[in-house]
Amino acid sequence: MVPRVVFGRGSFNQLSEILAPKRLNISAPFIFLVDDVFKGNSWLVSRIPLSYNDKIIFISAAQEPKTSQVDELVEGIILDSKELPSGIIGIGGGTLLDLAKAVSIMLTNKGETKDYQGWDLVKNKAIYHVGIPTISGTGAEVSRTTVLTGPTRKLGINSDYTPFDQVVLDSELTKDVPKDQWFYTGMDCYIHCIESLNGTFLNTFSQTYGDMALSLCKEIFLEDQLNEKEAQEKLMMASWHGGMSIVYSQVGVAHAMSYGLSYLLGTKHGIGNCIVFNHLEEFYPEGVAIFKKMKEKHNITLPQGICADLSDKELDIMIDVALSLVPLWENALGANWKKIITRKKLKSLYLKM
Amino acid sequence: MVPRVVFGRGSFNQLSEILAPKRLNISAPFIFLVDDVFKGNSWLVSRIPLSYNDKIIFISAAQEPKTSQVDELVEGIILDSKELPSGIIGIGGGTLLDLAKAVSIMLTNKGETKDYQGWDLVKNKAIYHVGIPTISGTGAEVSRTTVLTGPTRKLGINSDYTPFDQVVLDSELTKDVPKDQWFYTGMDCYIHCIESLNGTFLNTFSQTYGDMALSLCKEIFLEDQLNEKEAQEKLMMASWHGGMSIVYSQVGVAHAMSYGLSYLLGTKHGIGNCIVFNHLEEFYPEGVAIFKKMKEKHNITLPQGICADLSDKELDIMIDVALSLVPLWENALGANWKKIITRKKLKSLYLKM
Repeated sequence: MVPRVVFGRGSFNQLSEILAPKRLNISAPFIFLVDDVFKGNSWLVSRIPLSYNDKIIFISAAQEPKTSQVDELVEGIILDSKELPSGIIGIGGGTLLDLAKAVSIMLTNKGETKDYQGWDLVKNKAIYHVGIPTISGTGAEVSRTTVLTGPTRKLGINSDYTPFDQVVLDSELTKDVPKDQWFYTGMDCYIHCIESLNGTFLNTFSQTYGDMALSLCKEIFLEDQLNEKEAQEKLMMASWHGGMSIVYSQVGVAHAMSYGLSYLLGTKHGIGNCIVFNHLEEFYPEGVAIFKKMKEKHNITLPQGICADLSDKELDIMIDVALSLVPLWENALGANWKKIITRKKLKSLYLKM
Repeated sequence: MVPRVVFGRGSFNQLSEILAPKRLNISAPFIFLVDDVFKGNSWLVSRIPLSYNDKIIFISAAQEPKTSQVDELVEGIILDSKELPSGIIGIGGGTLLDLAKAVSIMLTNKGETKDYQGWDLVKNKAIYHVGIPTISGTGAEVSRTTVLTGPTRKLGINSDYTPFDQVVLDSELTKDVPKDQWFYTGMDCYIHCIESLNGTFLNTFSQTYGDMALSLCKEIFLEDQLNEKEAQEKLMMASWHGGMSIVYSQVGVAHAMSYGLSYLLGTKHGIGNCIVFNHLEEFYPEGVAIFKKMKEKHNITLPQGICADLSDKELDIMIDVALSLVPLWENALGANWKKIITRKKLKSLYLKM
């Protein structure tokens, strides 16, 4: 779990104070990986504390993060600096947070990023790394994974060294998120809860976190009691608790199938989850019904027919990626999941989307 | 926050696996501080993994933990072992957990324990320390304090080095807790929630944890839907979440006054909180009403008149201890708390108890 968390509106201003004691020496910079939507946004960028050789790298989150992208970032940082950095600070959504986690791991572990996709393959402690979400829902700020698309699969680097050493939860940073993005990413959290709470891996630890996040999601997306600031704060906490819920259990059908979409079509995680979940009534009847209510209430129109023109070969690739995520299916459907989830079944589901 | 947590019925059996990689060398023992109610209880004691010079120290929790007791334990450990221990493992309720935290701090920090009562006075990182609760409610497993009675006050050592490095949450260890003790310690959690949720320091972080713990307490102590095992697991999670809620806010009137009782009369924390809270309708009307329902449902009879025979001098000592806890009063009643809480007011409240 993340050992240090600062929470509060405006707490981003404490960043300088948080980082100062962690500077190893003046040749070991802090590297800030920042979502490039903030390029030229002085409200945020001017408050990033830069000293000595510290550096901001702006990165587009238009595509899902890739293992090759991590390798390039790490190479650039090593070439650019005499010493290993004092810390890596990710500022952005799930993509930036996952990149920050992966870069901090790969700065101290040899070889290529793709070799670490899986469970507990990381040998050395990562560089000190800090996560600062600017959009809520993914749970990347609290998870022990960093989900990356590699040459052969979309899979996380799951390890004890992956979680952030420090997280700053400042809901003010989420104030300019576009509405569609807000909904899709918020639904990532909602879907975490539904998949965790309806999974066979559920335990009391995960259940209490999942219950709490689910009730916050309903309050935010179905009721009209909250002002904007309250809704932003509560969604930030929902993301946190939803993430905690799956740390000790697992996600399910929507995530397994959405990884297939991402791998083949590059569909972003949040919207991909929504496209898939919309067709999962038979697995999560109540969860999908509430999802549809939320979608309607916020006038969200999902893309349709995104798989309609795919060849059988392409569908097979998606199906392979989805089927490879064994723990997700086991959590969703139990040990005998293969009897329910056949290639034919997955194909028919994908073709509906 | 606690960086590593294992949760699950029977997870105590993983202790050997958890500790093995933390052994510094064969001359650096693990020291287990264990509640002496488990002395001779082979179901638990035989599962404590002992190697080399590892040692179990049984300690009575009949009295609240003292700074002098910590000093003695630390001296004994240093005299007894060639090297500093590899780790301190506390197995018990709040008393044992607080002792384990304090001993691990004082093994690496000079001087006397009483000098560290306060906020952020600890200079050096503590010895690796593990908390294993055998009763639920105090939140000591998750808090960044260790509350000790010193020569002049009852106050915590609050620091970044206080929280456990590892916690094991195995609800099976709570199965033999006597009913009264179960109620009093559970109410510690309930009162944490009421004080946090009704405090002026409340923020969304604390609120979501407090809401969750409160709803679990109501389920456990007011409803009849849970079997024994579920109730034990849920109370363990309620304690955790209730503790998290006050990490980022503060407790209130009941804790301030109960510290006075403990200091003068040695009243144990759980029952002391109940004795005080029972008379706090004017501060927490709804919370006290529900508390009384719970008390009635479980046929709990609280001691009465425990302050009736105290001299004015003794009452003054209690009042001094209570009034010294400024952050608790500020949280409970706001910046102008001194207008509401006079010495006379406190005296009249204590005399009711």
